[in-house]
Amino acid sequence: MLNPVDDALIARLEAALPGAVRPVEPRHLEEPRGRWRGQAGVLVAPSSTEEVAAAIRHAGEARVGVVPLGGGTGLVGGQVMPDGPAPMLLSLARMARIRGVHADENALVAEAGATLAEVQGAAEAEGRLFPLSYASEGTARIGGALAVNSGGLNVLRYGTARDLCLGIEAVLPDGQVLHGLKRLRKDNTGYDLRNLLIGSEGTLGVITAAALRLYPRPARRATAFLAVPGPAEALALLARAGRVAGEAVSAFELISGQGLRFLGEAGLAVSHPFGAALPDWLVLTEIACSGAADPGALVEALFEEGFAAGEVLDGHVAQSEAQRAAFWALRETIPEANRRIGAVASHDIALPLSEIPGFLEEAGARLAGLGPLRVNAFGHLGDGNLHYNQFPPAGETRAAWAHLAAGASRIVHDLTVARGGSFSAEHGVGRLKVGDLELYGDPAKLDAMRRIKAALDPVGIMNPGAVLR
Amino acid sequence: MLNPVDDALIARLEAALPGAVRPVEPRHLEEPRGRWRGQAGVLVAPSSTEEVAAAIRHAGEARVGVVPLGGGTGLVGGQVMPDGPAPMLLSLARMARIRGVHADENALVAEAGATLAEVQGAAEAEGRLFPLSYASEGTARIGGALAVNSGGLNVLRYGTARDLCLGIEAVLPDGQVLHGLKRLRKDNTGYDLRNLLIGSEGTLGVITAAALRLYPRPARRATAFLAVPGPAEALALLARAGRVAGEAVSAFELISGQGLRFLGEAGLAVSHPFGAALPDWLVLTEIACSGAADPGALVEALFEEGFAAGEVLDGHVAQSEAQRAAFWALRETIPEANRRIGAVASHDIALPLSEIPGFLEEAGARLAGLGPLRVNAFGHLGDGNLHYNQFPPAGETRAAWAHLAAGASRIVHDLTVARGGSFSAEHGVGRLKVGDLELYGDPAKLDAMRRIKAALDPVGIMNPGAVLR
Repeated sequence: MLNPVDDALIARLEAALPGAVRPVEPRHLEEPRGRWRGQAGVLVAPSSTEEVAAAIRHAGEARVGVVPLGGGTGLVGGQVMPDGPAPMLLSLARMARIRGVHADENALVAEAGATLAEVQGAAEAEGRLFPLSYASEGTARIGGALAVNSGGLNVLRYGTARDLCLGIEAVLPDGQVLHGLKRLRKDNTGYDLRNLLIGSEGTLGVITAAALRLYPRPARRATAFLAVPGPAEALALLARAGRVAGEAVSAFELISGQGLRFLGEAGLAVSHPFGAALPDWLVLTEIACSGAADPGALVEALFEEGFAAGEVLDGHVAQSEAQRAAFWALRETIPEANRRIGAVASHDIALPLSEIPGFLEEAGARLAGLGPLRVNAFGHLGDGNLHYNQFPPAGETRAAWAHLAAGASRIVHDLTVARGGSFSAEHGVGRLKVGDLELYGDPAKLDAMRRIKAALDPVGIMNPGAVLR
Repeated sequence: MLNPVDDALIARLEAALPGAVRPVEPRHLEEPRGRWRGQAGVLVAPSSTEEVAAAIRHAGEARVGVVPLGGGTGLVGGQVMPDGPAPMLLSLARMARIRGVHADENALVAEAGATLAEVQGAAEAEGRLFPLSYASEGTARIGGALAVNSGGLNVLRYGTARDLCLGIEAVLPDGQVLHGLKRLRKDNTGYDLRNLLIGSEGTLGVITAAALRLYPRPARRATAFLAVPGPAEALALLARAGRVAGEAVSAFELISGQGLRFLGEAGLAVSHPFGAALPDWLVLTEIACSGAADPGALVEALFEEGFAAGEVLDGHVAQSEAQRAAFWALRETIPEANRRIGAVASHDIALPLSEIPGFLEEAGARLAGLGPLRVNAFGHLGDGNLHYNQFPPAGETRAAWAHLAAGASRIVHDLTVARGGSFSAEHGVGRLKVGDLELYGDPAKLDAMRRIKAALDPVGIMNPGAVLR
């Protein structure tokens, strides 16, 4: 059993880590969706890996829980502990240095507290690309991004946070420092602890720094916003994009007409190029090339071939950087519109690509049987990742339909898992989906996870209640 | 402590798995470098995942070691147990089906016993590419390739075996089946057991099937064989290739003049295009593009820019598929030449790219101080992975200089690790490098590895003596 933070522990932390014990602020106890409010016995913000190790050793000796804090942008409650003995919050905010940019190696070493935008900027200053990108990139920190293996807009081409990490430095639950900050593309020397810690959401240790992969910065890019007949045609167009442009396809986002209508309903002044006759389904795709290759020609070829094949109904190729930015602003404003309207239930699911059209049809029909909820499906079609959310009828409140939330989630997750999909594609398990993991997770996997957790963190101090109960 | 296989266990296996107990053949006890000879109490070749699970449960109940067998091409002795209580050999050769090719998803599901060539062929039949490729691909099986996280010729562009795996089915040491055969690009539902088992060399379980990533098949490729002044210029040329062609750079191999001279010395009739004045250092690079992009123009641009910058001295661009094949034959015959001449010591190292020129200079000087050994350095420069091998003076035997082997390895590995490198880039630890892992491995990593091994395999039946002592 864990103990709450007490004055003796605080005194020991203050003595051992001068200046690291900080006042708890409201933002340390909040998460973006407002489902939970965290609690804190103390906030520690170490300035070095050694201080992180010392803080964790002190917590371990006192049998006190440790909740690591990155940018606080996680959507599954991994960063807030709402009940149980008051934990130590461990903020990585003061460890935010870029330790080195190795441009000719396409590698960069950053401390966990650097924001994604800071890492992107450090790469760009050397003419390189750090491709991990999503709406919260100005706030989200790289340590948290790795802890949850976040995804975003460029996964199709460059992979998730996991794929962009060459090595990590981390503090294990017993306070040992794992020195794995290698800038190597290949290293087969024992078990893959890097990938075990990535995605473990702070329950097996705290990532303090990472060696990250950079890429050549594409010289030119071309962006198209296309109306498609439906999800099946969008998938056919995705396969065609692979034939036309190979790995140069950098993004392939599915957007529903409902998503664009929500922008207006939410009072967000974002215009789209399709006029009044809004299509039911749209694709936003981007092709980016290095050197002499011409992405504009590839996008035009995709548009023309897709149109001839009936996979594209209409479309617009961005004619300027401003128009490109306007297209992307549409996509990136959808989550804010959703937030303003207020989802009854929201889901971050992944499916094998070929299962997506059938899923959308079946889930839509089953949800219609549940009640008059509106569905906004959008997301990273290239990755098989949909954000599939349900909303109240127009003009009604989320609260009035909250009684359907659990039923909607059960329908969505049951159908997803039955089709070989995942109930958490990129957001993680956190505290929100612990029950889903127990319900849908493979028993052998859960058993092995519990054994590993017990082996590395026998007292259970690291992020108690996240991922595993 | 483990027990040897006895007649009672064989009888139980014969009763439970009809037809699966097979005669042990010499090939089941051999490994390519002839360092060790394995032993076997019994050979079991199950025909299904359930039979694999049953065999492992029987071994566990009898406390008998299990040595998984793939194609037997591993270079570090992971597939042979030369001493200790006679183990059960577990061959995956009868589980070799391609369970499904999902071309539009760029995914394929194969059983562990399928050879790499069979997986490549199944992908090619649907117009897709499975990029894992190396000299032993006709024999190596995908389960073994994943168990050791093998690399090969296309890692620069497509990654190692790990990067090409979407999901696995595996049998854990307690006989539970891990059902993780998902065809998903994103799945953040708990700890990453897939990557923990990949690279664990059969010590944490047996992979029985895998969902693998496929890629669009590049429509055109261009190949150049270039003489360069030295490794530093080769690295500058590699960075230039990234600027010119981005991720379309599919291979970037470093070859030494010594390596080409060895072809003749070994009596291998492979000709090269550089005539009598053989350069000291060469690069074999390939650029491959989809759709409309022209790799020939990119290779020409790289050649011209590199020549103007002094990074290229001379070179040949393949003018036909036959010439391309001849270039690659040179590269792929080097290991056979090395085998015939007989290495005193051989090393599979990775370094941060910027450390490679300094390493080659320093290691060459230190080895020259040890004795008159000849060095053949070659490998996957794009990955920072060198095969850095020492040979006897011309006309002398390996045996005459074997007394320098340990000293040479110590020099090479000490310098590698001091420069942030890895003493096993793509071959793994097996039984050959257990001592190196203990010597050079991070103590916190080794401790965590031992805890995980004990948690998942408390009796220690899985591949005893591999990776961990």
